[in-house]
Amino acid sequence: MMLPTFLELPPRPGKPRATGMTHVLDNGIDLQTVTGVLDAAADYLDVWKLGWGTAYVDPTLSEKLTLIADHDVRTCLGGTMLEVAWAQGKASECLAWAHDVGFASVEVSRGVAAMEVSEKHDLIRRAARSFAVFSEVGRKDSQEELSSRQWTDEIIGDRAAGAQWVIAEGRESGSVGVYRADGSVRTDVVAAISRAGGIESILFETPQKDQQAWFIHEFGPNVNLANVAASDAIALETLRVGLRADTFGLSRQWLPI
Amino acid sequence: MMLPTFLELPPRPGKPRATGMTHVLDNGIDLQTVTGVLDAAADYLDVWKLGWGTAYVDPTLSEKLTLIADHDVRTCLGGTMLEVAWAQGKASECLAWAHDVGFASVEVSRGVAAMEVSEKHDLIRRAARSFAVFSEVGRKDSQEELSSRQWTDEIIGDRAAGAQWVIAEGRESGSVGVYRADGSVRTDVVAAISRAGGIESILFETPQKDQQAWFIHEFGPNVNLANVAASDAIALETLRVGLRADTFGLSRQWLPI
Amino acid sequence: MMLPTFLELPPRPGKPRATGMTHVLDNGIDLQTVTGVLDAAADYLDVWKLGWGTAYVDPTLSEKLTLIADHDVRTCLGGTMLEVAWAQGKASECLAWAHDVGFASVEVSRGVAAMEVSEKHDLIRRAARSFAVFSEVGRKDSQEELSSRQWTDEIIGDRAAGAQWVIAEGRESGSVGVYRADGSVRTDVVAAISRAGGIESILFETPQKDQQAWFIHEFGPNVNLANVAASDAIALETLRVGLRADTFGLSRQWLPI
Repeated sequence: MMLPTFLELPPRPGKPRATGMTHVLDNGIDLQTVTGVLDAAADYLDVWKLGWGTAYVDPTLSEKLTLIADHDVRTCLGGTMLEVAWAQGKASECLAWAHDVGFASVEVSRGVAAMEVSEKHDLIRRAARSFAVFSEVGRKDSQEELSSRQWTDEIIGDRAAGAQWVIAEGRESGSVGVYRADGSVRTDVVAAISRAGGIESILFETPQKDQQAWFIHEFGPNVNLANVAASDAIALETLRVGLRADTFGLSRQWLPI
Repeated sequence: MMLPTFLELPPRPGKPRATGMTHVLDNGIDLQTVTGVLDAAADYLDVWKLGWGTAYVDPTLSEKLTLIADHDVRTCLGGTMLEVAWAQGKASECLAWAHDVGFASVEVSRGVAAMEVSEKHDLIRRAARSFAVFSEVGRKDSQEELSSRQWTDEIIGDRAAGAQWVIAEGRESGSVGVYRADGSVRTDVVAAISRAGGIESILFETPQKDQQAWFIHEFGPNVNLANVAASDAIALETLRVGLRADTFGLSRQWLPI
Repeated sequence: MMLPTFLELPPRPGKPRATGMTHVLDNGIDLQTVTGVLDAAADYLDVWKLGWGTAYVDPTLSEKLTLIADHDVRTCLGGTMLEVAWAQGKASECLAWAHDVGFASVEVSRGVAAMEVSEKHDLIRRAARSFAVFSEVGRKDSQEELSSRQWTDEIIGDRAAGAQWVIAEGRESGSVGVYRADGSVRTDVVAAISRAGGIESILFETPQKDQQAWFIHEFGPNVNLANVAASDAIALETLRVGLRADTFGLSRQWLPI
């Protein structure tokens, strides 16, 4: 059906879009629900990440990847999966399998494995031969925070190694990386990320509504947001265009990105 | 299939029911899930609200409204949607669109827009020409709480303007309006609401299980509860009739409403 | 499709399995979602509990039980349901109905009713004539905690009365029984449970991810976990085999159970 047009709302680029991307985290969602979400929200979705190692144990994986790709949403393998393979000396096998089964992109992270930055850059280079690469910056354990300088440098280095986009860590919980344990935003980390430049190719992990609203207020309706729950796809779109209380008023305000 | 009957449970009115109503909040749920929820729980559901502006961006809206209405559940447009339209001088366009697309009712609120009570009453009068109106009382920002007197007066005024039911604000989070930030019930607000009379046409927003249980203990199994997650429809019905630990014992106790 | 095999992961027994069982809590899930979950995760699921009294009010119950059994997952009636019936002097009627409608097992608990341990043992004996019995130990109200001695003794007594498995209480929230209100594990209770012996026939209720990870770290990938959300079935399987950050490294470590 035709969407209504009687309101003035911030413009949103159509697909394929370079900014204003929404990246969802699939934590093992069943195909019935995937079908339903895509029917309603495919126009608003750009990247569909099969979180951590869910792809490895999911017997419906092949069907799921086809379904998502058929809706013009880019599939992505979760970074922890590749970290586990790398730690076992099986990174090549993992990348070959991801390619064979049909992933369009992979995430390269060092969120939990004892991987040096230089080793990550090597892995990005290898992955970039076959995939569009999302690198991820930030550790998954709040006891191992990066310094501001490390955030900036790792983003710059990841891009130089071949990462097309960089994801700022928040996990499914929204309590590490760019966030404090209570979910509030670490503005020092956001500033460090901004210093790396190229904010239009950064994706911020924002699993919680308040985090999504914060980044929309800060960077505008077309900020790239990641690790959004698939079931929140429609709700996030309303937040982006000012159709929910948390971003009320944005509708009148054309913002930067 | 036939439901079992071997237990003594509090009586629940059948549909269409005037009390004991369950009003669910649709935050952008996919049609597969809507279909599943209605197949199981349609007999327990009275109102299905498409929250805030989700209806405006949902390409499956028309199909969804038909599906819900076919299960004898009343559809309702979220209040924030109308507030955004009103703030842009497009309230008439919004009501006309809601009517054309098939909504049976609309919510009229001033939860976020800078709308005076008199302006809200005007909007209720206009909406009541085409719709059964749910008015909502309470602000969405915890910094803008109403006084007890304002709660009572606004309910009475909304009814005089044409609201058939009045909803007490709690949001999807259950942390404002009739609740403190931690989700506990503000009994002073509940008392103010009660002073307006007509408790059988009040719906309390109760997104959290403990909030549902509180109101069931306070007002009985047939209190009207709103902003319930669609996926909680069956669970709420068990709470109402004492089939869950939180309301255990209610089964022997016939309560007021 | 064939699952990949390039990683070294802890071995998981196939179905029907005696350890490493995953028991999910159905809080009133719709049939579309149940279908989707079983299509993806049936190989990982052993027990499907229809929580508290949801079975009593669900018009799709018969279809749901057939669907679950067809995927070789054991169905179980929630304990609170039987407690309500017992409190009304209708335990026999409840057991007869559960048998007629097709439940393969029932949970016998005294989580909320004023039931003595001896009365519970009598109920286990009656239920065991027709069903495989899961007994549950622990109160649902944090004000009524059992002593360590009571935990140990009740487990031993339940088994003697005929319980095939014993479930350690955590509720859907993960905030009572083996947990403190903040969800952290009460290691004194876990120790008391261990003292009863037979850890391979204990199921720990672990609704939260951190709780699942804690028990996997403590007892290995094949610890029995209960009250897992159906939508977390795939995610839990990744936790068990070390494919998620929280249990990273387990893949190299063959653990006891």
